[in-house]
Amino acid sequence: MLLVLYVIAITAEAMTAALAAGRRDMDWVGVSIIACVTALGGGTLRDVVLGHYPVTWVRHPEYLWITAGAALLTALVAPIMRRLRSIFLWLDALGLVVFTVIGCQIASGMQLPITVVLISGMVTGCAGGMLRDILCNDIPLLLRKELYASVSVVTGALFLGAQHLGLNLNLSMIGSMAVGLAFRMLALHYNWQMPKFVYRDEWR
Amino acid sequence: MLLVLYVIAITAEAMTAALAAGRRDMDWVGVSIIACVTALGGGTLRDVVLGHYPVTWVRHPEYLWITAGAALLTALVAPIMRRLRSIFLWLDALGLVVFTVIGCQIASGMQLPITVVLISGMVTGCAGGMLRDILCNDIPLLLRKELYASVSVVTGALFLGAQHLGLNLNLSMIGSMAVGLAFRMLALHYNWQMPKFVYRDEWR
Amino acid sequence: MLLVLYVIAITAEAMTAALAAGRRDMDWVGVSIIACVTALGGGTLRDVVLGHYPVTWVRHPEYLWITAGAALLTALVAPIMRRLRSIFLWLDALGLVVFTVIGCQIASGMQLPITVVLISGMVTGCAGGMLRDILCNDIPLLLRKELYASVSVVTGALFLGAQHLGLNLNLSMIGSMAVGLAFRMLALHYNWQMPKFVYRDEWR
Repeated sequence: MLLVLYVIAITAEAMTAALAAGRRDMDWVGVSIIACVTALGGGTLRDVVLGHYPVTWVRHPEYLWITAGAALLTALVAPIMRRLRSIFLWLDALGLVVFTVIGCQIASGMQLPITVVLISGMVTGCAGGMLRDILCNDIPLLLRKELYASVSVVTGALFLGAQHLGLNLNLSMIGSMAVGLAFRMLALHYNWQMPKFVYRDEWR
Repeated sequence: MLLVLYVIAITAEAMTAALAAGRRDMDWVGVSIIACVTALGGGTLRDVVLGHYPVTWVRHPEYLWITAGAALLTALVAPIMRRLRSIFLWLDALGLVVFTVIGCQIASGMQLPITVVLISGMVTGCAGGMLRDILCNDIPLLLRKELYASVSVVTGALFLGAQHLGLNLNLSMIGSMAVGLAFRMLALHYNWQMPKFVYRDEWR
Repeated sequence: MLLVLYVIAITAEAMTAALAAGRRDMDWVGVSIIACVTALGGGTLRDVVLGHYPVTWVRHPEYLWITAGAALLTALVAPIMRRLRSIFLWLDALGLVVFTVIGCQIASGMQLPITVVLISGMVTGCAGGMLRDILCNDIPLLLRKELYASVSVVTGALFLGAQHLGLNLNLSMIGSMAVGLAFRMLALHYNWQMPKFVYRDEWR
């Protein structure tokens, strides 16, 4: 089941990445690259930092084809996409919680400390979007607004908590992902934001 | 022979990187850093992602000196460079195909799947320039125009195809690099471009 | 002693990173992430490039808490920070030389060539700040002005030289860090700069 969700998640990430690339007038190669970096970059960064080789797409190169294919398809049918906005927001949120749980599981399986397990989930869930924003020359959205990283931390903490309480693996996964998904969609709907830190002083 | 071409390639990349740094008013340390990142960053990223340690310049630190030296020399004689524009375009294209073939060979030697071998060639050939553009705070050129990544994929595919057909290693290398080089120079000359995906809609 | 200095250094880096994040109106999650990337990113990049696993904060996740805590505290008491400007410059310079010596020691312990040892010190000392600038969508300061990387190279070279001459480890460390610290503060005070390479020609 996690595999099915994972494929849905990388497809959704690839599609939103393609739209971001289209806003920057990238060509088709650029669109494919941005899509692969967004959908697979978080997991790659996690594997590299944890020394967990080989990274996902080296073992499963078919994910590269799925991602690039989804992105190019998106470029073809972009005009229709406008109508699908709300579906996209759900898929994107689904991707976030699925990636987070996968990231937590991998670090957990390596017997790493709890803080690192949470960070691993956060990197898997959020770093792809940060890399996309860096390549598109934006300040990463995640750093400025939206409860994106927070959703990831909450999802990961619930998953670990449930596991610690001895819950069944599938139940822990589904439960934490459902809460995370609801949290993310509520945050979007009510425009919840973390307090901002605004500082103006050119002392450097 | 590949070694000679490699040294020519990193020298050429270092020189074009130095000019990019000069356009951003970087100081001499910045020029050297940008040059090393551009010339050696693609190979480093490839080695890190594939878990292929030690990375090239850790085993051969002399490449760092060659790169930094070429960059500083370029800064000294920059006014002459304007006259050498066409030589540079050739050297830069040579660097692209040489890096690509080296990247393919390394992944091939690790028995990785074909898709990953092509990606390895593309990362080796193109990622240095992307890192340069990120450090210079540009949207990577490669994502927006020029058949840069495409040339890399074509070169890598030809090299693998020739190897698969049982051709001699040197012949495969020379043939694929020659075609890739010609493709790149024709693309530049006739201003060939991939179709662009332009999307305007601030739905996020 | 190096441990105490290291904790002081990551705290100082976290605080200056928090102020940089505040200038970009980041929220609290963004402030914490920028702080961790700035304070721990240089060492992480070094470990990943050298294949030196596990990276520091995976073994010692408490550094993540110290860093994030220092950053959030800084966001709370930012108005007072203006008064502490000169203390910060000292702490930031201290961080630079401490990180440099630690980076040199790790590469030295891996029996790597001298050039790589110096680069390892430079990456540990400087890359965190570069990552911060990339995430904040700036051209890295280090590439444009200030003798930041140069201070790192001088500190590392002195440390290696002292070791080579058979000096006691603690003495080598303290001596090279003291000279590096003095160099950095003098450079700031007298506004020493490396010559810049300015190049204007859109040939590409």
